[in-house]
Amino acid sequence: MRVPLTRETCVPLYRQITEFLRSQIQSGVLPAETRLPASRDLAQSLGVNRITVTEAYAELEAEGLVYSRRGSGTFVSPLLASLRRAMADHPYMDGWPAWQYEAAKLTRPTTLRKFDGLLAASALHPNLIDFANGRGASELFPMDDFRKAFQAVFRRDGVEAMAYGDPAGYPPLRETIAHILSSEGIPARGNQVLITTGSQQAMALVARVLLRPGDTALVESPTYIGAIDIFRSAGAELVGVPVDEQGMEVERLEEIVCAAKPRLLYTIPTFHNPTGTCMSGRRRRELVALADRHNMPIVEDDFVGDLRYDGHTQPALKALDTCGNVIHICTFSKVVMPGLRVGYLVAAGPVYEQLLAAKELIDVTTPNVIQRALEAFITVGRYQTHVRRACQLYRRRRDTMVAALARYMPAGARWVLPHGGLFMWLQLPGGVTAEELYPAAVEEHVIFVPGSMFFPAQEAQPYVRLNFAMHSPHVIEEGIRRLGRAIEQFQAGDTSSHCWRLSGHGNSMAGQCPA
Amino acid sequence: MRVPLTRETCVPLYRQITEFLRSQIQSGVLPAETRLPASRDLAQSLGVNRITVTEAYAELEAEGLVYSRRGSGTFVSPLLASLRRAMADHPYMDGWPAWQYEAAKLTRPTTLRKFDGLLAASALHPNLIDFANGRGASELFPMDDFRKAFQAVFRRDGVEAMAYGDPAGYPPLRETIAHILSSEGIPARGNQVLITTGSQQAMALVARVLLRPGDTALVESPTYIGAIDIFRSAGAELVGVPVDEQGMEVERLEEIVCAAKPRLLYTIPTFHNPTGTCMSGRRRRELVALADRHNMPIVEDDFVGDLRYDGHTQPALKALDTCGNVIHICTFSKVVMPGLRVGYLVAAGPVYEQLLAAKELIDVTTPNVIQRALEAFITVGRYQTHVRRACQLYRRRRDTMVAALARYMPAGARWVLPHGGLFMWLQLPGGVTAEELYPAAVEEHVIFVPGSMFFPAQEAQPYVRLNFAMHSPHVIEEGIRRLGRAIEQFQAGDTSSHCWRLSGHGNSMAGQCPA
Repeated sequence: MRVPLTRETCVPLYRQITEFLRSQIQSGVLPAETRLPASRDLAQSLGVNRITVTEAYAELEAEGLVYSRRGSGTFVSPLLASLRRAMADHPYMDGWPAWQYEAAKLTRPTTLRKFDGLLAASALHPNLIDFANGRGASELFPMDDFRKAFQAVFRRDGVEAMAYGDPAGYPPLRETIAHILSSEGIPARGNQVLITTGSQQAMALVARVLLRPGDTALVESPTYIGAIDIFRSAGAELVGVPVDEQGMEVERLEEIVCAAKPRLLYTIPTFHNPTGTCMSGRRRRELVALADRHNMPIVEDDFVGDLRYDGHTQPALKALDTCGNVIHICTFSKVVMPGLRVGYLVAAGPVYEQLLAAKELIDVTTPNVIQRALEAFITVGRYQTHVRRACQLYRRRRDTMVAALARYMPAGARWVLPHGGLFMWLQLPGGVTAEELYPAAVEEHVIFVPGSMFFPAQEAQPYVRLNFAMHSPHVIEEGIRRLGRAIEQFQAGDTSSHCWRLSGHGNSMAGQCPA
Repeated sequence: MRVPLTRETCVPLYRQITEFLRSQIQSGVLPAETRLPASRDLAQSLGVNRITVTEAYAELEAEGLVYSRRGSGTFVSPLLASLRRAMADHPYMDGWPAWQYEAAKLTRPTTLRKFDGLLAASALHPNLIDFANGRGASELFPMDDFRKAFQAVFRRDGVEAMAYGDPAGYPPLRETIAHILSSEGIPARGNQVLITTGSQQAMALVARVLLRPGDTALVESPTYIGAIDIFRSAGAELVGVPVDEQGMEVERLEEIVCAAKPRLLYTIPTFHNPTGTCMSGRRRRELVALADRHNMPIVEDDFVGDLRYDGHTQPALKALDTCGNVIHICTFSKVVMPGLRVGYLVAAGPVYEQLLAAKELIDVTTPNVIQRALEAFITVGRYQTHVRRACQLYRRRRDTMVAALARYMPAGARWVLPHGGLFMWLQLPGGVTAEELYPAAVEEHVIFVPGSMFFPAQEAQPYVRLNFAMHSPHVIEEGIRRLGRAIEQFQAGDTSSHCWRLSGHGNSMAGQCPA
């Protein structure tokens, strides 16, 4: 191994070696399980003292990039190498045109990509229990009905099913959505519905139309990762509004709005992501009135609003909106199937045409055949039956997770019963941050989303988000048992035998890469 | 009818009436075929001279907004009302929150929406022959194969087909695309391919990653409407590079690049949209070398590169690119089916990760099931068979259109034989602009895209774009016959009997609405 060293610098030799090896590991040049040269051999070939190499290896081991196996040498860590590579901002080799690096420098890396890196790296582990994923239970996917719906569409519509189609979406599907919304108290007409490629695209359209660099957007703190990313990428500053068990603390909002002069407010009022809370009716009414007073659009993300397991129904903000201030965003990803990539927004007034023009601009139209198949599948009655079935299943799973938490969590852990949605928000005991805990959890073969990812400021947090909807009860039980064990082991400080520990580098998960 | 008039202004009364009625027609308050009050009645109710009302009606008729039927009165024109409504920048009624108007003011209306308005308004006409559309022949859509491919995917993949899937695209499809590209001399690996929702989304990603407000982008002049829109919406200034029969005039480029310092160059080298020309091999090599010299990315739009009917194959710019300067964009919309909404880009180097992050940010991923069905359908051999069949059909149609043009065009009309693609670019005789001709063509029940839409500056042009691929030979023949007649009638000035004439307002089609 040829490590480029220079004596004409104040950087110590051991640090030069550390940095070289770190970059080689992060860029994948040294893949997982690669055996590093014996320290004696490397020292000799570089003409340095053996202690210099030993120090470099110790540093890399402390960072979790390598591990040593007694008697056989030092190896590149399998999990952390890919985790770090996924999280590094510029994990590339040199030699590309300069404009490529300039473009990279201008763009803030997205938390979504880091989240993917986290999942991808963790997925290397066998027998992993994944509480991090954002999807529902795949056994609920109405596969057979959809197979038939596709067939019916091909038979009925012929080549029309494969033509471009209306940029606003397949008109009969928009009508069906308007009927579903009306059945839930949201008065909407088909021509106020805009079909999007998932709710993420609806948010991208809103950001494109409403935000300019330097604008401020209000969001709940914490809030959905994809919203943080999309508003930031539009150049907006994010100001967080605190959340309690009744949802966004609307009482504090007047003051925040006067100070921040936001261009929009984004909220997930019903079964909030990540905390699972539901905004009270009083706060909903106050929020809508406040938006009107301050000429401020509300972007209402209703991604799981129909997945209610107990408690009272609250009206959607859109149902309370008489002036056209609320843009309502929803998706079939969570209630029906994510692979459809069909979401929609509902907006009244001139902004609808702006959003439609933006939709056409960025991808012309969402695939016609899928919209037609969804329309063939779905009726108001069928949708409600599907929702009912999902609610039954997910209620049981939520209860399983709650019972397991009560059984396996050490004293000091806290959670609130969510009345709907997909997620539980767990506060770790004793000030342990999710970033500190993560390596121990991976070691126990269980993962979650570290809470920091959901906060606009993204500093380390003592919270984790757990998906309770995706797994069967015995997997949930086992996963929570592992999580409890990970916390206990971490608290006992018993991590010396693990090579996974991210000690002192927790922040790397929250947006920074150790230099 | 209550027309608000004021005497406390220098605006004449007849003009106040004209402006009020124009806004009512454009906003749809007065729908098509509404009978206006008799001039005598309106004059009486407003307390003005009858001649004032007559003048106002005459002005509206000259603009094509109303027509008079002898003995029965004055009526709102059916076609132009909706055409103008579609083209108006703010066709809305009052009463919405102020932020909605503020958002609209900040956004430049897209040419794509205007183009839709043109098509939608014209489609009201029965028996219309549409040479404006951008798609291929729907009888080539492999509907039956695709129906089977969907079934096969449902059977084979089960719920996996409806899960989220890889943000970069379904890996086996990316491998297949890499094989197809390699078979065409473009060395690509699957992990350099990024699946997008059509090529329009690929362009949106490139604009998002590479362009910032105030940047300059070079484009051919004329060029694809969607490219003009997407680059402009990113805040870029467009600088046009002239095109001749050998494609972009690369010889002039060095000077333009030095003056404009562009952030990127966008080109459609093969069967250019709208002119149909193909860039010569010499120019391709010069262009790639120049990009390297100037550290400038080339965005190569290869939307119909495989649809070649005669002449020599030219290498894709990506095939000549050894440094990573070319981002290659392609789509299955034109060669297979537009309703798939599957396109892709190919990029090497760090910019790939930026583009991928942008893709995930704006819609997470292109629908999984469609990607899997396309992958099940397509192999290198099957793709090439499909391309061969399309080429046979389109070659005949192109020849039909060329023969019809020779037969029916008046002296002075010019065109160049395109060796591939979907479009012919017709230069109208005698300096007639497409905008002037359009109403006469609609009257003859034939439409095209006015050339102005393809130019960055969008002023009136003596060019029209004709799609030769979409229609059967006898429809092509009849359409060109009608077009010839429209030109002759326009040249003869014989338009007095038509209410459609846009006389003196041709520019409204090119981006401005008469005030």
